[in-house]
Amino acid sequence: MLPLKMSDDMSYRIDSDVLGEVKVPKDAYYGSETQRSINNFVVSGITVPLDLVYAYAMLKKAAAQGNKRDGKLDLRRADAISRACDEILAHKLDFQFKIDIFQAGAGTSLNMNLNEVIANRAIELLGGKKGDYKIVHPNDHVNMSQSTNDTMPTMVHIATYLAIRNKLLPALKNLEGALAKKSTEFKGIVKVGRTHLQDAVPITLGEEFSGYKWAVTNTMQMLIDVQNRLLEIPLGGTAAGTMINADEKYAHYAVEELNKITKAKFKIPKNRFVLMQQRLEELAVADALKQVATAINKISNDLRLLNSGPRSGLGEITLPEILPGS
Amino acid sequence: MLPLKMSDDMSYRIDSDVLGEVKVPKDAYYGSETQRSINNFVVSGITVPLDLVYAYAMLKKAAAQGNKRDGKLDLRRADAISRACDEILAHKLDFQFKIDIFQAGAGTSLNMNLNEVIANRAIELLGGKKGDYKIVHPNDHVNMSQSTNDTMPTMVHIATYLAIRNKLLPALKNLEGALAKKSTEFKGIVKVGRTHLQDAVPITLGEEFSGYKWAVTNTMQMLIDVQNRLLEIPLGGTAAGTMINADEKYAHYAVEELNKITKAKFKIPKNRFVLMQQRLEELAVADALKQVATAINKISNDLRLLNSGPRSGLGEITLPEILPGS
Amino acid sequence: MLPLKMSDDMSYRIDSDVLGEVKVPKDAYYGSETQRSINNFVVSGITVPLDLVYAYAMLKKAAAQGNKRDGKLDLRRADAISRACDEILAHKLDFQFKIDIFQAGAGTSLNMNLNEVIANRAIELLGGKKGDYKIVHPNDHVNMSQSTNDTMPTMVHIATYLAIRNKLLPALKNLEGALAKKSTEFKGIVKVGRTHLQDAVPITLGEEFSGYKWAVTNTMQMLIDVQNRLLEIPLGGTAAGTMINADEKYAHYAVEELNKITKAKFKIPKNRFVLMQQRLEELAVADALKQVATAINKISNDLRLLNSGPRSGLGEITLPEILPGS
Amino acid sequence: MLPLKMSDDMSYRIDSDVLGEVKVPKDAYYGSETQRSINNFVVSGITVPLDLVYAYAMLKKAAAQGNKRDGKLDLRRADAISRACDEILAHKLDFQFKIDIFQAGAGTSLNMNLNEVIANRAIELLGGKKGDYKIVHPNDHVNMSQSTNDTMPTMVHIATYLAIRNKLLPALKNLEGALAKKSTEFKGIVKVGRTHLQDAVPITLGEEFSGYKWAVTNTMQMLIDVQNRLLEIPLGGTAAGTMINADEKYAHYAVEELNKITKAKFKIPKNRFVLMQQRLEELAVADALKQVATAINKISNDLRLLNSGPRSGLGEITLPEILPGS
Repeated sequence: MLPLKMSDDMSYRIDSDVLGEVKVPKDAYYGSETQRSINNFVVSGITVPLDLVYAYAMLKKAAAQGNKRDGKLDLRRADAISRACDEILAHKLDFQFKIDIFQAGAGTSLNMNLNEVIANRAIELLGGKKGDYKIVHPNDHVNMSQSTNDTMPTMVHIATYLAIRNKLLPALKNLEGALAKKSTEFKGIVKVGRTHLQDAVPITLGEEFSGYKWAVTNTMQMLIDVQNRLLEIPLGGTAAGTMINADEKYAHYAVEELNKITKAKFKIPKNRFVLMQQRLEELAVADALKQVATAINKISNDLRLLNSGPRSGLGEITLPEILPGS
Repeated sequence: MLPLKMSDDMSYRIDSDVLGEVKVPKDAYYGSETQRSINNFVVSGITVPLDLVYAYAMLKKAAAQGNKRDGKLDLRRADAISRACDEILAHKLDFQFKIDIFQAGAGTSLNMNLNEVIANRAIELLGGKKGDYKIVHPNDHVNMSQSTNDTMPTMVHIATYLAIRNKLLPALKNLEGALAKKSTEFKGIVKVGRTHLQDAVPITLGEEFSGYKWAVTNTMQMLIDVQNRLLEIPLGGTAAGTMINADEKYAHYAVEELNKITKAKFKIPKNRFVLMQQRLEELAVADALKQVATAINKISNDLRLLNSGPRSGLGEITLPEILPGS
Repeated sequence: MLPLKMSDDMSYRIDSDVLGEVKVPKDAYYGSETQRSINNFVVSGITVPLDLVYAYAMLKKAAAQGNKRDGKLDLRRADAISRACDEILAHKLDFQFKIDIFQAGAGTSLNMNLNEVIANRAIELLGGKKGDYKIVHPNDHVNMSQSTNDTMPTMVHIATYLAIRNKLLPALKNLEGALAKKSTEFKGIVKVGRTHLQDAVPITLGEEFSGYKWAVTNTMQMLIDVQNRLLEIPLGGTAAGTMINADEKYAHYAVEELNKITKAKFKIPKNRFVLMQQRLEELAVADALKQVATAINKISNDLRLLNSGPRSGLGEITLPEILPGS
Repeated sequence: MLPLKMSDDMSYRIDSDVLGEVKVPKDAYYGSETQRSINNFVVSGITVPLDLVYAYAMLKKAAAQGNKRDGKLDLRRADAISRACDEILAHKLDFQFKIDIFQAGAGTSLNMNLNEVIANRAIELLGGKKGDYKIVHPNDHVNMSQSTNDTMPTMVHIATYLAIRNKLLPALKNLEGALAKKSTEFKGIVKVGRTHLQDAVPITLGEEFSGYKWAVTNTMQMLIDVQNRLLEIPLGGTAAGTMINADEKYAHYAVEELNKITKAKFKIPKNRFVLMQQRLEELAVADALKQVATAINKISNDLRLLNSGPRSGLGEITLPEILPGS
C-alpha cells in the first residue's frame, strides 16, 4: 500500500534536479522530485486521490495550449505535452502517482509529479528517452508560466467543481426525487408528531418526508451557490499572484482551453492575490458539504428511530434488511 | 449576575400554570413558567442576549396584529399586546428577561418569558393587575396561533438577519473600505513576497492589501447569500408544522406585519416542516460567519508578523501601540 | 451589561502610564491600563469570570508574601497588598473588574486590572489617595518579580484546579452516587436490550444504569489525572521563562504561600519554558471536560429516549415534569 | 483501489447466510456477509487498516483458545482456527480484507469478514473445502462466545494500544531525545526572546529547545496515562454486556491468551456495560493524540518561523533543504 522507497536491487535510472541526483525506478515516468517526496513523506500510506491528478492534467494541458497560443511554447512540445495529459486522463498512467496525500505544505510534490510524468511521457512520444529533459523539461516546458502557488488552488477548484457537478449533485438529485416520491406515497398515513420525543399533535408520514425532501433541496441549493465561487481561479498568478514569468494573454488562453476540456465556465478573478493568500472558497464548499451531510444525517437518524423495534420500539416504518447481525 | 432564585423574605405574588402554583417576585412581569426556568436552569449565569428578546417581541407584535386581522383576537387585547411589545423594543423591560441562555431544548422558557411579560404588562395597560390572566392570557392570547416550535426558529431567523444587516455588514463594509484605501496608499511600496515564509518574488504592499480587501469582499458576499436564506420563516406551523390552531391567513398577515416592523422581506416557505425538523439555515449562517472570521484572522496574523520586531523581526509595518506591556 | 466608556460628564481622575494620561472614573480603583482595555476591547459584553479574578488575587497575595520573604518588598507594602487581595477574595471589589473576556492575546489587561485595583486599594489602606503610586505602584510593587507571561498561565492553572476540586468533582460524585443508587434500585427490572435501536437480548434496567454510573466514574478519574497536571506552574519565569527580574528563592516562597492560601500542592516545574510556550495542560483539561460531557450527554439522550411517549414511544421510564410546554 | 463487486464472468462459488445465497469469488476465503458488505458499502474506497484486522485476529485466536480451555470448543477446531489466525498475523491473507472502512455502525461486517476468512481457511487446514461450514462455522465456532458488540470495542482497544506501544511511543521517544540533544548543543547561543512576536528579553536557543523537549515529554506522559485505560476490555459481554452465550471462565481464559499473544496486560473491567454503551477510552486516546499533535505543530511552526528568510526573515536557524521549489 505504501509507496515503496527504492530498494538496492531494483533497476533504476538516475534523475537529477537542482539539489542533485536521485535514483528512480527504471520504468518510472516520474523523476527526482517525485522520488524525493516518496522518500521524505512516508506519512499516511494514502496516496493523492486520482481525481486531483486528473484535474491537474486538465490544467497542464490547458496551460500548454495557452502557452502555445501565446507564442511561448513551440507547437511540437505543446502537443506532446497535451497528448501525455490525455493519457493521464484516459487512466493509463495511474500508477505513476504514488506520493502520499500529506506532503510539503504547498503541494509542490504533486505539481512536480505531474510535471515529471508529463515531461517523460512527452519525451517518449517525441522519440526520446526518459530523463532527456532537453526535449521536454518538467519545469521549463510543462510548468511554463506556472507555479505550484497558482496551479494548486486552481487544480483544487477544478477537481472540486467537477466532483460536485458530475458525482454529488446527480446523487443528491436522485435522493431528492426518492424522498419526494415517498412523501406523496405516504400522504394519507396519519401518525403521531413528536416534540422532544414526546407525543404531540398528529402529522402525516408524507408531511415528515416532505421535510426530508426539502432538507435535500435546500442544502443542495446552498452547495450550488458556493460551488459557483470555485469558478474563479488564480491561474497565471505564478508564485505570489504578481504574474512573474506569465502574462494576461496566456492566462486568458489557458482558461479558454480549460473550459473546452471541462465544459465549465472558469474565469479570471478580479483579484488573484486573495485566491493565493487564503482558501476561503474551499472552506465555504467544505462547509456546504457539512450542511448537506448534517441534513442527511438527521434524516437517517429519524429513519433509524422510526424503524426501531420490531416489538419494543416505535416500529412505524420497516427498513429493508441488508446484512445479518453477529 | 446569576438570576436569583426567590428568597424567603422577598415580596412575592403567587402565579400558576398547569403544573401548579409558583412564587414570583411581586413586581415581576414574568410569571410561573419563567420562574420555574430560573429555578431549574442554573447553568451558565449568562442570560439570553437581549437581541433575541427584541426579535421575539417583534414576532409577538406581528402575531397579535395578524390574529386581529384574521378576526381571532379582539382589537383591545391585540393593541395592548402590541403596546407591551413596543415597550420591550424601547428597552423598558430589559430586566424582566433573566433566564439562562441554556434552558430546555426547544426554547419553551424563552417563549413563555415573552408571553408572560407581555401578558402582564398588557393587563396593566388595560387597567388590570398582574396575574389576572382573564384580561390577557400568556398562552391563549399572547401565544395565540403559535407554538415554541414555530416561533423559536422564526425568532432566530429574525434576530440573526437583523444583526447581520444592522451591525455586521456595516462593520465589514467599513473594514473593506479601510483595506481598499491602504491598498491604494501602499501601491508603490515594493517588498519581498514570501512562500512558506521563505523569500520569493517581489510584490507591492498594496498588492498584499488588495488581497486582504478582497478576502473581506468575498466572504461578505458569501454571508449575504446565506443571510437571504433566513428570510423563509416557519411562522404558523405551530407544534409540528401542520398549522394546528393556526391558519394560512393568519400566517400571511403576521408575516406582512413583521415586514412592516423589520423593514425586511420575510416570507412563508414552500415547506414548513423542514424549517422545524432541522436548523440548516442557521448552520449555514454560522459557517459563513466562520468564513468571515477565518479571513480576518489570516489578515490579523499577517499584520502581526509584518509588524514583528522592531529590531529582530520583519518590521515591514508599524501598528499603533494601544496598551503598555506588563 | 457592557463595560462603559467614560462619558464627558462623569466625575473622573487622571491616571497615567508609559503611553500617557487617561481619564478614569473618580471612584474606580482601576487605573489607566484597565481603562484603555475597556475603551479598546468592546468585544462580547461578557466580562472576565470572577473565579479568574479571585485566582489572580490569590497569586498576587502569594507573590507579595514571597517577595517579602525574599527581602525585596518591604513589610508594610507587602501586607497592604495582601489585605487588598483579601478584600477581592471577600468579593468586596467585584465591580472593579469590568474588562471584556476577549482582550489582548496574553492577558496583559487582566494582569494590569489586578495590579491597579490592588495598588490603589493598598494605597488607601496605607492612608494615601488613589493614583499616588509612590506609595504602592501597580508594576513595581504589585507586579514585582512577575510578568503577564508567567502569571496568566499560573492563574489559569489555579482557577481551573480549584473550580474542578471545589465545584465539579463534588457534583460528579453526587451524580455518580445517584446513578449507583438507581442501578441497585432497578436491578430486578428485566427489559429488552437494544443494538442499533433494534430489539436484542434481555438486560436489566439496573445493568443499564450501572453503565451510566461507571461512565461518570471513569471520566471523573480521567479528569483527576489531568487536573493534577495543573499543579505545575511557571511562577517566577517572568517574560520568557528565564526569570529575569525574579529568582528561585522568591518562586519557592511564593508557591509555598500559594499553597497555604489554596490548600493545594502547586509546585515549580522541571521546565518553565514549555509552560509558557504552550497551553498543553489546559488543552488536556478541556478535553477531559469534553469527555465528561460526552458521557453525560449519552446518558441524557438515553433517558430521553427511554422516557419517550407516553403512548407512542418506548415509555420505559417516567422522568418528572419540570416545565409545562407551549 | 475500490473493492470490486462481482462481475458476471468471474469464477464464483455460492455462499449463504440467514438472508440467503450470495455469489463470492471462487478463491475468496471470505463469504456471503463480507460480500454483502462489499456490495452495500461503496463509500470511500479506503479499506479497513490492516492493523485492525491483525488485532481482530489476535482476539479471535485468544477466543478460540479460551473456548477450548472452557471446554466449549473441541481441540481440533480451536487449533485450526488458531492456525488460520496465525496466517493472518503473518500477513498471508491481507487481500481477503477488502471492505470499506465506513460500513454498518457496529462493525458487524468487519467481525464477519474475520469470521468467514478464518472459518474457510481453517476448513482447508482440516482438509475440507471452502464453504463447508459443518467443519468450521463462522458464527458457531469462530465467533463462539462473542458478538460484534463486545469484540469490536475490544479489538479497537487492542489495535490502538499496540500501535501506541509499538510505533508511536518509540517515535516520540526518539524525537524527545533529538530535542534534548539540540537543547544542550544550543545552550550557549543567546538570542532575542519574543512575546506577541515583539522583541523582549534575552533567552538562549537551548532554553527554547528545552521547552520543545518538555512539550514532547509531557504530552507523551498524558498519552501513556490514557493508553493504560485501553487495557480494560469488555470481552465476554456479547451483545449487550450481559454475557449471554458466554461465561466468566471463558472471558478469563481468553484474556489470559490475549496477553500471551500481545505481551500486554489486558484485563476484565469492573463493569462491562459502560465499555459497550460508550466509547470514552477511545475518545480520551484521540484527545491525547491531538495533544501530542498540538505540541509538535507548535514546535514546527516555531522552526518554520525561525528559519524564515534567508535575507528578509528571522533567519535564526537553517533547516536542511529536502525538496526544490516549483
